[in-house]
Amino acid sequence: MRKIKSIPLKLYQKQSRKVGQSPGTLTAFGEKPEKPTVVTLFDYDHNKCEEKQVEMMSELRQFKDSTTNSWTNVEGISDTDLVAEIGDIFGIHPLVLEDILNPRQRIKMEVYDDYIFIVLKMITYSDEKDSFDKENVSLILGKQFLISFQEKPGDIFDAVRKRLQTEGSRVRTFGCDYLAYRLIDLIVDHYYVVVEKYGEQIEQLELELSEKPDSDLLNNIQMLKRELLLFLRAVLPLGEVLTGTTKEGQMLITDDTRVFLIDAKDHFMQVKDTITSFRELAADMLDGYLSMISYRMNEVMQVLTIFAAIFIPLTFIAGVYGMNFEFMPELHFKYMYLVVWLLMIGTAGAMLVYFKRKKWF
Amino acid sequence: MRKIKSIPLKLYQKQSRKVGQSPGTLTAFGEKPEKPTVVTLFDYDHNKCEEKQVEMMSELRQFKDSTTNSWTNVEGISDTDLVAEIGDIFGIHPLVLEDILNPRQRIKMEVYDDYIFIVLKMITYSDEKDSFDKENVSLILGKQFLISFQEKPGDIFDAVRKRLQTEGSRVRTFGCDYLAYRLIDLIVDHYYVVVEKYGEQIEQLELELSEKPDSDLLNNIQMLKRELLLFLRAVLPLGEVLTGTTKEGQMLITDDTRVFLIDAKDHFMQVKDTITSFRELAADMLDGYLSMISYRMNEVMQVLTIFAAIFIPLTFIAGVYGMNFEFMPELHFKYMYLVVWLLMIGTAGAMLVYFKRKKWF
Amino acid sequence: MRKIKSIPLKLYQKQSRKVGQSPGTLTAFGEKPEKPTVVTLFDYDHNKCEEKQVEMMSELRQFKDSTTNSWTNVEGISDTDLVAEIGDIFGIHPLVLEDILNPRQRIKMEVYDDYIFIVLKMITYSDEKDSFDKENVSLILGKQFLISFQEKPGDIFDAVRKRLQTEGSRVRTFGCDYLAYRLIDLIVDHYYVVVEKYGEQIEQLELELSEKPDSDLLNNIQMLKRELLLFLRAVLPLGEVLTGTTKEGQMLITDDTRVFLIDAKDHFMQVKDTITSFRELAADMLDGYLSMISYRMNEVMQVLTIFAAIFIPLTFIAGVYGMNFEFMPELHFKYMYLVVWLLMIGTAGAMLVYFKRKKWF
Amino acid sequence: MRKIKSIPLKLYQKQSRKVGQSPGTLTAFGEKPEKPTVVTLFDYDHNKCEEKQVEMMSELRQFKDSTTNSWTNVEGISDTDLVAEIGDIFGIHPLVLEDILNPRQRIKMEVYDDYIFIVLKMITYSDEKDSFDKENVSLILGKQFLISFQEKPGDIFDAVRKRLQTEGSRVRTFGCDYLAYRLIDLIVDHYYVVVEKYGEQIEQLELELSEKPDSDLLNNIQMLKRELLLFLRAVLPLGEVLTGTTKEGQMLITDDTRVFLIDAKDHFMQVKDTITSFRELAADMLDGYLSMISYRMNEVMQVLTIFAAIFIPLTFIAGVYGMNFEFMPELHFKYMYLVVWLLMIGTAGAMLVYFKRKKWF
Amino acid sequence: MRKIKSIPLKLYQKQSRKVGQSPGTLTAFGEKPEKPTVVTLFDYDHNKCEEKQVEMMSELRQFKDSTTNSWTNVEGISDTDLVAEIGDIFGIHPLVLEDILNPRQRIKMEVYDDYIFIVLKMITYSDEKDSFDKENVSLILGKQFLISFQEKPGDIFDAVRKRLQTEGSRVRTFGCDYLAYRLIDLIVDHYYVVVEKYGEQIEQLELELSEKPDSDLLNNIQMLKRELLLFLRAVLPLGEVLTGTTKEGQMLITDDTRVFLIDAKDHFMQVKDTITSFRELAADMLDGYLSMISYRMNEVMQVLTIFAAIFIPLTFIAGVYGMNFEFMPELHFKYMYLVVWLLMIGTAGAMLVYFKRKKWF
Repeated sequence: MRKIKSIPLKLYQKQSRKVGQSPGTLTAFGEKPEKPTVVTLFDYDHNKCEEKQVEMMSELRQFKDSTTNSWTNVEGISDTDLVAEIGDIFGIHPLVLEDILNPRQRIKMEVYDDYIFIVLKMITYSDEKDSFDKENVSLILGKQFLISFQEKPGDIFDAVRKRLQTEGSRVRTFGCDYLAYRLIDLIVDHYYVVVEKYGEQIEQLELELSEKPDSDLLNNIQMLKRELLLFLRAVLPLGEVLTGTTKEGQMLITDDTRVFLIDAKDHFMQVKDTITSFRELAADMLDGYLSMISYRMNEVMQVLTIFAAIFIPLTFIAGVYGMNFEFMPELHFKYMYLVVWLLMIGTAGAMLVYFKRKKWF
Repeated sequence: MRKIKSIPLKLYQKQSRKVGQSPGTLTAFGEKPEKPTVVTLFDYDHNKCEEKQVEMMSELRQFKDSTTNSWTNVEGISDTDLVAEIGDIFGIHPLVLEDILNPRQRIKMEVYDDYIFIVLKMITYSDEKDSFDKENVSLILGKQFLISFQEKPGDIFDAVRKRLQTEGSRVRTFGCDYLAYRLIDLIVDHYYVVVEKYGEQIEQLELELSEKPDSDLLNNIQMLKRELLLFLRAVLPLGEVLTGTTKEGQMLITDDTRVFLIDAKDHFMQVKDTITSFRELAADMLDGYLSMISYRMNEVMQVLTIFAAIFIPLTFIAGVYGMNFEFMPELHFKYMYLVVWLLMIGTAGAMLVYFKRKKWF
Repeated sequence: MRKIKSIPLKLYQKQSRKVGQSPGTLTAFGEKPEKPTVVTLFDYDHNKCEEKQVEMMSELRQFKDSTTNSWTNVEGISDTDLVAEIGDIFGIHPLVLEDILNPRQRIKMEVYDDYIFIVLKMITYSDEKDSFDKENVSLILGKQFLISFQEKPGDIFDAVRKRLQTEGSRVRTFGCDYLAYRLIDLIVDHYYVVVEKYGEQIEQLELELSEKPDSDLLNNIQMLKRELLLFLRAVLPLGEVLTGTTKEGQMLITDDTRVFLIDAKDHFMQVKDTITSFRELAADMLDGYLSMISYRMNEVMQVLTIFAAIFIPLTFIAGVYGMNFEFMPELHFKYMYLVVWLLMIGTAGAMLVYFKRKKWF
Repeated sequence: MRKIKSIPLKLYQKQSRKVGQSPGTLTAFGEKPEKPTVVTLFDYDHNKCEEKQVEMMSELRQFKDSTTNSWTNVEGISDTDLVAEIGDIFGIHPLVLEDILNPRQRIKMEVYDDYIFIVLKMITYSDEKDSFDKENVSLILGKQFLISFQEKPGDIFDAVRKRLQTEGSRVRTFGCDYLAYRLIDLIVDHYYVVVEKYGEQIEQLELELSEKPDSDLLNNIQMLKRELLLFLRAVLPLGEVLTGTTKEGQMLITDDTRVFLIDAKDHFMQVKDTITSFRELAADMLDGYLSMISYRMNEVMQVLTIFAAIFIPLTFIAGVYGMNFEFMPELHFKYMYLVVWLLMIGTAGAMLVYFKRKKWF
Repeated sequence: MRKIKSIPLKLYQKQSRKVGQSPGTLTAFGEKPEKPTVVTLFDYDHNKCEEKQVEMMSELRQFKDSTTNSWTNVEGISDTDLVAEIGDIFGIHPLVLEDILNPRQRIKMEVYDDYIFIVLKMITYSDEKDSFDKENVSLILGKQFLISFQEKPGDIFDAVRKRLQTEGSRVRTFGCDYLAYRLIDLIVDHYYVVVEKYGEQIEQLELELSEKPDSDLLNNIQMLKRELLLFLRAVLPLGEVLTGTTKEGQMLITDDTRVFLIDAKDHFMQVKDTITSFRELAADMLDGYLSMISYRMNEVMQVLTIFAAIFIPLTFIAGVYGMNFEFMPELHFKYMYLVVWLLMIGTAGAMLVYFKRKKWF
């Protein structure tokens, strides 16, 4: 049987700063990663799209209030100073920076005076490793700029990058808010992949349940139920975030983009509904498993009882005439042995009729 | 026993477009169907009703802003280009077209500037096949036009077509919004048929439960519970949609039609309430089944215990006097055999009295 | 044991009209009843109260806009034409008439321009038959008129009729809205009777549970739980209806009557709360039943195990010395028989001590 | 074991008036009590406080619009005429009087033009009888008067009376609304006593559960769960009532008193939370009980199975060589007896190893 | 196995004052503590920060309306007079003082005209004792002053004190509302520690569950579930409190601090979500435990039944030929012994095939 693969969702989420430390203190979380942090800048508008690696963060300063759109993508959050520097350039609140650095920050949106801060959770499935991978993605959306922070270096936004290079594409024509939508939409798309994987597992488990239920299956159903709970808890706040972005009066989101965000929310609701249904199906499967065990135990007990109830009296009868008393007159009757056999057969027959009437077999 | 027929409701709903693909990309879903797409146009007002097959989509252009009402019914959504062309003629948002092409799109309503987009799920029961069939129906309601997309070719709207041919009928007199209501109402009517079928299954299962509960029955109850869950999840958003259409200030819905939509919503609530009750009844049946199994197991165990407790000591006594020791004085006492019989009968009697007192039989 | 009497609440509610039929089509539901439809008119104000049987419906026309109050009570809804005629005289919407004719319509209220339409469910208990009876009652409350439709002929409104004949009574002095309240209040009063009957059943079942729980009792508790669910589901919308009637700005309800309707709502809430508690008590009883079964099964198993564990080794020992080997030296030892007895008693004693320590008895 | 004492909370609540009787009809409920109704009047303001027994109700008329505060306390509600007379003097709505006379009226608040009507439930614990007692208390709070109706004669308000006699006390200085608060607060204080008693029972039951769980304990936990449900249902509406009294714009409640009422509400929420937690703890205890039973049954079964599986084969072997066939060559082998013993010991040993591996002991 | 350490959260919360006592009566709760009450004053603004022990409470009077910020920290609430004196100086409502003195007061916030009163619950984990400790912390936040009351003497606010001594720190620059936030944030930080400890216990229990589930494990899971319930109930109202403090129009909270409080609320939500997930995981573990027990019992029963069903018939056959009848012709047939052996082996084989087919092993 295929083993349930566990999404590495940590149960409890440590804060990056220590108890009582001043809020806004920036601390790197976990060990240093192998790859260094890469910062890529896209400076684009309807006509052009320039991509370049940023070496000195101070180069970014000009893009804060430029008339073209800019997308700064930071791959890796281990370099605290770098994040602090970017925060300083774009005038980001220290608490926001702290949240960006915390890989266990839950999904949320906060609206500041001149930017919106969004934390997202990307969950990707890799066919090769047959396992899920999770990372936090933080977005800072300003009027003409978007900054995205990936927890781990990687090319998860590749599809969008390519789109951005294509002249006349919608992502080039619309503003940074549309670009942000595309990143969110990409993340929701990946949730669909997760949902599909879970769906396959449920179908697999239902098949096994109808064949031979054993204790491994029980473990797998419970593991799946647990996974679904953790996945649901992790992504649930996205609904609120998307509702927040599509509210009227959100200055940084244009009406054009709002239509798309509503669509993304609709997709997310579908993910949520499906996962919720999966949870209920898994719970039903567990009930089914237990019912089946109960039913089979009952069956086993009936077989045992039928055997015991038929043969125990017979064995007793045989035992009686195996006694060695000197004076047991029956022992000497010629047809007594035959009579005893008839008695035993009669007893067994009566038992069988009794159990038949009770519908035990 | 009649087998529970499963409604083919897919658990998880894949998106038609791939991960990271640009939103609004139109992709046909699944394999090509056998029948070609048929587009029928009804151009009607109080006085006339012309029905014709549309060959060239460009013929439709004149109906976008005509003063008569028009209903364009598209049977089949496999021809992506055709849908794109219609969308282009009526000025439909690309995201809407994408949703129309996705047969797993959930029920929803979206209000655009000059049209309302509604996705519905038609669930029909066919007596011949004794099974349910499901398809998505998308409606685009403009001021003077209604476009409906059926997932599969078929005559599910026949009743309304006939009505439309009847002069003086309400559907001819009122606008396109009333026509849309009639289609929605037709769909809700079909839900009643589904509800009735489920009701029959529940009555059937309750009957079987009171007769001989076996493990097939258990499977059937669980299957039914699962079906009800999936059906409920699938149709649930219709409540929101109907609330949305009946809200004051919905420009494209007249007051006359609103009264009818409120009625449709009331019918839908009835469907929802009944299905919810069915779920609870199915859950109660499962509990009942398990209780019965527990009760019977207890009974079985009591029978076993009574037999075992009575005969095991007797067999022991018989075993004792079956031993072959040279020096067993009792073996030579004349009335010892009788005494042993009396002892055994006494022991059995004492046991019976004990179990009687414990109310085990 | 007294058998649980089932309230005839149909599980699923068919619509009177067929799938796809035009809304507002009036169809009689079920078979023709024995008694003909009776229409009674009360024309009353502070000073007078005239009661008469209405033969020609056209007589009613004068009462639509008369200055006196009028109450038209229609007993039986099988005569579709008659209902249609009354609807026509008072200007009632076709959908309302359709709902009146549907005996499975759920409780609801709809506010139209010049009348309020309310559907209620009367549930009466008859001592003779020891069973419940259910019928729909529809009210149409206009400015100076009230029309009530009873599903079945009968004298359920007798108490109010008598009150109406009494000069100076509140029902004579106040308007038609107060009369409508009195009918609603009468229906809620009957719910109290149902609640009391259920309460008696619960007490009865609790008594039986504490005496000898058997599988009939299990069935009865489950039946009761089911009944309570169906009753609750059926009457639940009345809360909304009463909230609706007591909202400020309801033109047809005077302030004087509103106070009374608030009181009726309070009574209904009490009914609802009590039934909800009953459901929980019934669920607790089921749990209690199952716990008791589990406990007793454990007890049975312990008895069995004690017997088996004590006597099976003894029987084995006896069996050993019942073997017929030629060379079994022990058989010839003089005190061996005694030793074996001591051995057997010792074994049994050790077992008893072991089980005593385990607190099995 | 201490027996769970049951709070006498009637499950279903009969109305005092009969089905169909005119609302506002005043009927005494239940039998006549032994003690006569006692009416006490406190006429007080900052300077004085006069207490007297009221013989003629007409004496009360002057206090309706007097400038001093007055508190009329009516002990016992069996004298319908007396209540009606007081109602008449203070201009109370007939429905209010009906509710006062109904000892099963649920907790509620109704705001009338010039008074507020509040129904409360006093639940007291008596140490002597070790049982709870319940009675309804109705308050009518006017501008300068407070009327309280106790269901049963008694001195439950003694603490407040004494306070009222104390010059300079807050209850003397503030108005009637503060006095009403003090009565409500007294009732909530008594709920704390109930909560504490339940807490003691839960601790007691948890102790017993960890010692020897038996079927009495099961009954007691279920009884407690039931009690908690009924208690919670009975007092729950007090939350709404207190919210209602502390709403801004409540003319008869001064700002000073509002602060105190908010405090009372906070206390009530604490009672509610604790009782809700108790319910969950009781449910957890039941689960724990059942789990323990399951665990022990499993243990019992293992013991049985080990014994049976070891000795049944041995007994069979012994049985074989107890057969009396003429030609059984083994019987005559010299060391066969020894071999059989070794065989039996080997079989038993193999069994033990097998069960050891299965971790059955 | 590590024993679950219980957080000392008292189930029910006694009030400090007695039933019927006047509200605002100040009573010390519990026994006198060993250490005397210590009052520390921090008088600080942007430029300076003076810390001193307060001996005479009257010294505090000047700080009520001073232009610098002051923080009065009271360690220990056993000295009723001292609390009353402070209350008097700062003009605190008697009910507030009563709540401060009650160590079982639940978390809440109350807004008064010129100060906000907040009750919090600090839960700390001590590594040495490996146990949790709980105490109430009450805050009174005025325009230029903050008073905090710790239930027990101790240095829980040390981290903040140090920060306050640091020139240029945010806590020095911002007002008292920021200081209050820092204290709240410290408390939430400590909740994270509790959450982490619970997370470790869950992982530990899951490990044990997958190894050898026994009845101790059952107790531990249930104990944990109970702990989580009590912890959740205790801290839950903090969400409301934090929502309350961040509402617009809260005069005493500046916009700068509001951003921080929103962050604290977000942290608290994370704590709440995680604990809720833990509850569900614990419930799932219990289900898993019971399922495993059921599964194993079934297995045990099958083993028993297989043994019994195979050997009981064989023993019977052996018993038959152990009978001592004179006329048993088979006994004298030469190959009868062999035939019986074959018969027995055949019976056993048939049984094995039967059970194999039933998939019992």
